[in-house]
Amino acid sequence: MDSSVLVSCFVILNLFLMTIPASGGKSRHFRWEVEYMHWSPDGLEGVVMGINGQFPGPTIRALAGDTIHVELTNKLPTEGVVIHWHGIRQIGTPWADGTASISQCAINPGEKFAYRFKVDKAGTYFYHGHYGMQRSAGLYGSLIVDVREGDKEPFEYDDEFNILLSDWWHKGSHEQEVDLSSNPFRWIGEPQTLLINGRGQYNCSLAGQLSHSPTSQCKLRGDEQYAPRLLHVQPRKTYRLRIASSTALASLNLAIGNHKMMVVEADGNYVHPFAVDNIDVYSGESYSVLFTTDQDPSNNYWISVSVRGREPKTPQGLTILNYRPTSASKLPISPPPAAPAWNDFKYSVTLSKQLFALKGTPKPPARLDRRILLLNTQNFIDGYTKWAINNVSLVLPATPYLGSIRYGLTNAFDQKSPPDDFGREYDIVKPAGNQNSSYGNGVYTLRFNTTVDVILQNANALKANVSEIHPWHLHGHDFWVLGYGEGKFTDKDEERFNLENPPLKNTAVIFPYGWTALRFVADNPGVWAFHCHIEPHLHMGMGVIFAEGVRRINKIPDEALGCGLTGKVLMKKNGGI
Amino acid sequence: MDSSVLVSCFVILNLFLMTIPASGGKSRHFRWEVEYMHWSPDGLEGVVMGINGQFPGPTIRALAGDTIHVELTNKLPTEGVVIHWHGIRQIGTPWADGTASISQCAINPGEKFAYRFKVDKAGTYFYHGHYGMQRSAGLYGSLIVDVREGDKEPFEYDDEFNILLSDWWHKGSHEQEVDLSSNPFRWIGEPQTLLINGRGQYNCSLAGQLSHSPTSQCKLRGDEQYAPRLLHVQPRKTYRLRIASSTALASLNLAIGNHKMMVVEADGNYVHPFAVDNIDVYSGESYSVLFTTDQDPSNNYWISVSVRGREPKTPQGLTILNYRPTSASKLPISPPPAAPAWNDFKYSVTLSKQLFALKGTPKPPARLDRRILLLNTQNFIDGYTKWAINNVSLVLPATPYLGSIRYGLTNAFDQKSPPDDFGREYDIVKPAGNQNSSYGNGVYTLRFNTTVDVILQNANALKANVSEIHPWHLHGHDFWVLGYGEGKFTDKDEERFNLENPPLKNTAVIFPYGWTALRFVADNPGVWAFHCHIEPHLHMGMGVIFAEGVRRINKIPDEALGCGLTGKVLMKKNGGI
Repeated sequence: MDSSVLVSCFVILNLFLMTIPASGGKSRHFRWEVEYMHWSPDGLEGVVMGINGQFPGPTIRALAGDTIHVELTNKLPTEGVVIHWHGIRQIGTPWADGTASISQCAINPGEKFAYRFKVDKAGTYFYHGHYGMQRSAGLYGSLIVDVREGDKEPFEYDDEFNILLSDWWHKGSHEQEVDLSSNPFRWIGEPQTLLINGRGQYNCSLAGQLSHSPTSQCKLRGDEQYAPRLLHVQPRKTYRLRIASSTALASLNLAIGNHKMMVVEADGNYVHPFAVDNIDVYSGESYSVLFTTDQDPSNNYWISVSVRGREPKTPQGLTILNYRPTSASKLPISPPPAAPAWNDFKYSVTLSKQLFALKGTPKPPARLDRRILLLNTQNFIDGYTKWAINNVSLVLPATPYLGSIRYGLTNAFDQKSPPDDFGREYDIVKPAGNQNSSYGNGVYTLRFNTTVDVILQNANALKANVSEIHPWHLHGHDFWVLGYGEGKFTDKDEERFNLENPPLKNTAVIFPYGWTALRFVADNPGVWAFHCHIEPHLHMGMGVIFAEGVRRINKIPDEALGCGLTGKVLMKKNGGI
Repeated sequence: MDSSVLVSCFVILNLFLMTIPASGGKSRHFRWEVEYMHWSPDGLEGVVMGINGQFPGPTIRALAGDTIHVELTNKLPTEGVVIHWHGIRQIGTPWADGTASISQCAINPGEKFAYRFKVDKAGTYFYHGHYGMQRSAGLYGSLIVDVREGDKEPFEYDDEFNILLSDWWHKGSHEQEVDLSSNPFRWIGEPQTLLINGRGQYNCSLAGQLSHSPTSQCKLRGDEQYAPRLLHVQPRKTYRLRIASSTALASLNLAIGNHKMMVVEADGNYVHPFAVDNIDVYSGESYSVLFTTDQDPSNNYWISVSVRGREPKTPQGLTILNYRPTSASKLPISPPPAAPAWNDFKYSVTLSKQLFALKGTPKPPARLDRRILLLNTQNFIDGYTKWAINNVSLVLPATPYLGSIRYGLTNAFDQKSPPDDFGREYDIVKPAGNQNSSYGNGVYTLRFNTTVDVILQNANALKANVSEIHPWHLHGHDFWVLGYGEGKFTDKDEERFNLENPPLKNTAVIFPYGWTALRFVADNPGVWAFHCHIEPHLHMGMGVIFAEGVRRINKIPDEALGCGLTGKVLMKKNGGI
């Protein structure tokens, strides 16, 4: 057949696919172009990775049951790109998960990729780059899914706001990558600025007048790229505040001055409502809180985010809750809410333990089929500083797993699975005696439809008396958080698992020197990353790969396969045009 | 067939191909890894694109008739990469020319590509990145081809040195790309430092003590990455100095204090020897000069490079000619040679016009088959500042031309050819009345084995009274430089063409408001870029594409085709694994 005819066929086929109506729900189409652009997220100009000229990228809003169709064009000069739809399980569309080297080939410059997936569950989500450190470069945005038409949320509110949190460095993400891959190792340090909806202030503070810091009061017209987006409210109403964190590093604590918050949703799942003064939000997490505008309406109030878990060198991120008709330019009368001490981990643990599933949420299976213990350690490999899981530091292969596993390309990655356990004699409270580790890209193959427990075990890092927070995010699934514990996990700890009403989440932290127990059912055919959501940590190897039911996947679109060995095999078999 | 068997077959086939002996000459194998690394090319640390941990990349040295085999692995986190072998005509291997979007698909991160090509002609060459602005990022190195065993150069010398020139910015190449693609336009400015073999000095000068500038004398131990590599010579000997320029922007003038130079080679072709005090070297050019160490051996002498053609804001690049046994640390007694005034274009034209082919060099065909006049203008497109050729600003397609033309994929690029001429009423000395231009990626299809004249016509840029130097480089060919002229080219100028002994080159400049006439025979099946070798200018669209004899190419390796439409068609035809 003439090759131009083939191309035409291909184009027609594509058009056909694009118009298949989504079963139930609407089909929502977006055309996005990813490119670098000058931007001043915090008043200092740098370069961000934007979408359609916007930073953060456009907010997607849909109803549960809708099909999202994003035709993404890569307008970067030399870099590939992908977008991960964080929290969306990609049931039936594992190739649309947007993870380079895992679910698809990176989209080459000048090329397009059609992300087409169903948002089956209402909730607060976001999307972000998942290639190199492109999330750090600013490639992220919000994805909000409302309940189906006619359905109701299990709580009431008058209106809502959406807040996407991130952190920002003045050093570019490419240079950060080089730093992290260097020997001697160079840590990227703490972010210069915390951003709320992509906006923060570096050389001034919104609360300069009120604080004891030497930082001067910001003088803003309001149209600057780094001017805060204020939240305008009416008195005596109830608002839903959606919060998601796309930070590269920072664990954050969010507070609204003088206002209590009622937590009602976490990671796209309803939780048993509970009241808090402030809430910890780890990278990869999302929450909805309700608050009532029951304070003196002649004042305005701070909304603040502060660094938790690492000695904070980054000023609070701020915006203002403006009680209409009070002038938005009237500053709150008190300084911004003080966050709990950065190293008050007990506070954080207590908060995390308050999270229970709303009644009616599916319960975990009572019995597990397999338990995987994952020890988190910081290691040296050939002098390079890395993170390792059960002594393996993840280096992603050139051929995405989804294609190589589906088509049995056994030389695409280590065929030996990484271990399900670590030596139980490992002393988690001390720097390891043997700090050497090795690179790997083996896969945990999960039997389809089995119940898997993952015990994440934290440990001491390379330096004595250092153990950090790591928020672990699972793709393709929600998991039940069965429990948190201090020290080394033992079989006896299982007895204390909450099997009654554990919260369903897609991201859960391990606290310093502690463990966290998760359970999920391997019922979603695909290959799924499970990793620390701190981007530099993932870049340093802190993740594992789960594969389940891959043989059940019928046809992976060629567009996801055109690189590495899958690309070669597909082309070779054909023996030339 | 089982796909794992297929992969095995593929691997075996590859091994087989790799061991085919090159007809005549040796096969020289190299394994290269491209990666970013911290480096201090001029004393200020930045990030460079290095090869095997080196900057500049390793020097390749071979004999004419050898086959070079470079297995290149891309170790960049998210960027594709290619390497162009500048000056090598790639006869029979057009897919190895290393031009992304033209001769091959960029090599994806984690993947390899085998460059295998014959160096058929002795000479001074270099190699460099040819994707985005990766040459500006530091991806370059030397490629020296000696005469075949038993053959002799047409000149004699005792020993030789090799100098690769470049320019260096403190702003990273990614940010430069964003600047150049911005509206309003941001020019990248002049380089901070000139580099000789990847080494320059930013905050100090080797000649600080001798100069009137406020720059302090460098205090160097000699092992710094930015310490100059000195040229150690014996008195009363003749040396060959090989010079190549990989600058992103700067036109340079090179001089050796107190020493005359005899020019003997240009762009890998012998020229009729002529003596100079200093020599202009444009980006993309290479020269060999001979010099004799006939000066006072108790002194050392400067080797200097200075900016020409643009108001110089960059200090001279320096190193030292050290007469052994005089101490290398003894500074020359006089200041470095002063270069001709930056805007003394007459001087440059005179130098260029002194270049004649050595007797015995093939002469151009006396008659041409086609004349293509290319007007060089600076334009606006939708408010963006671009360069255009005959009103078309080149934007490279996602699918490399070589594959799409060979396989007739007519929707891969504009099927309409760009014009062979511009309106003869165009006033080249004034800013254009209509400054609007358009993007395009059409191709000049040259009938195989025909003789083509290209007249490069310079003009005024957007600003009044500005016309810049542009060194144009042709891939896949040498061309004869038939003449240079001032003002607008007219048919009468043809009468003055030098058809007797015009120099063969692969790069030739157009001077401000002038024209340059080139002739070549379209006898090398392939798709060849012809472009301004100033990297930001190419990035702004200053190039055209020639295609010739593409149907004669039998089999393009799949590895060069796995992206864009060629990748899709190759995979589709197969209908899945």
